[in-house]
Amino acid sequence: MQMHTRKVIVVITEALLEKPLTEDIKKLGVRGYTVTSARGEGSRGKRSADLDGAQNIRLEIICDEPLADKITAHLADRYMPNYAMVLYTLDAQVLRPQKF
Amino acid sequence: MQMHTRKVIVVITEALLEKPLTEDIKKLGVRGYTVTSARGEGSRGKRSADLDGAQNIRLEIICDEPLADKITAHLADRYMPNYAMVLYTLDAQVLRPQKF
Amino acid sequence: MQMHTRKVIVVITEALLEKPLTEDIKKLGVRGYTVTSARGEGSRGKRSADLDGAQNIRLEIICDEPLADKITAHLADRYMPNYAMVLYTLDAQVLRPQKF
Repeated sequence: MQMHTRKVIVVITEALLEKPLTEDIKKLGVRGYTVTSARGEGSRGKRSADLDGAQNIRLEIICDEPLADKITAHLADRYMPNYAMVLYTLDAQVLRPQKF
Repeated sequence: MQMHTRKVIVVITEALLEKPLTEDIKKLGVRGYTVTSARGEGSRGKRSADLDGAQNIRLEIICDEPLADKITAHLADRYMPNYAMVLYTLDAQVLRPQKF
Repeated sequence: MQMHTRKVIVVITEALLEKPLTEDIKKLGVRGYTVTSARGEGSRGKRSADLDGAQNIRLEIICDEPLADKITAHLADRYMPNYAMVLYTLDAQVLRPQKF
C-alpha cells in the first residue's frame, strides 16, 4: 500500500479540558480526533480515576506537520502555563493523506 | 536491551466492528491485539460517547512489516469504503520479536 | 516550536499489575505516566472486558533513553516471565524536555 507521512499529536491532560480543547483544534483546522479516558500521575500530582477512570483524557490527532506546529504552539501558549498537560508527537504513516 | 523493529498499527473505528475486525486480523495471522474504548469526531461526523464512552474503538496491533501490509490492504478493501475508519502505522522497538 | 527527542514506552499488561508497576517505575525515576483500561488477546489467551473494560491496562511513560532502558530491563526481569505483558517503545518529540 502507498503510505504517506503525517504527525500524530498525543495530548494527555485534565478531563475538564476536553470541550475547549476539541473546539480549539477544530478552529485550527483539525478534521478528526480521538479521545480516551485515562488516569495517571504527573508533575502536578496524582489524578486518581473516578468511576469511569475519567479524570484525565488522552487526545490523539493526526495531521500534517504545519498544522501540528500550529496546534502545539497554541496549546503551549493557551493551556500549558495553567493546566497539567503533556504533549508529544510521533511520525506516522497513513493511507489516505487527503483525510488529514 | 536488544530491541527489534516492528510495526504498530492503530485503527480507530466504529465500536460495532470490534468483533469482525478482531476475527479478521487473527485469520491474517495476528497473535495479539489491544482494544480501548474511545470517542471522537471524523469526516463522517461526531460520535458521542455512550455510558461506557464506547461508540468508537482504538485497536492496536504489533506485527512485522509484511503482516502490517496485509492487514492494511485488507482493512482498506473490506471496511474503509463503508465505515468510519482511521488507520496509521508507527515504527516501534520490541523486546521479544518472536512474539509478533 | 523547538522539540526534543524522548522515548515513549507502552506497556500492555494485566490490570492487577497497575499498582506494583507504577510504584516500580516511580522508584526508577519516572515522574509521570498515563494508564488507560484496555482489553485484548495475546499469546496467553483472551482477556475479556469486565464491566469497566478493565481486565488489561495500557501504561504509557515518556522518558529519556537511559531511563527507558532501565525500565525495560526491570520489567523484562521482574514481570515478563510470569505475567502477560507486551512492551514497545516509540521515538517521540516533546516540548519541555526538563519534564521527562
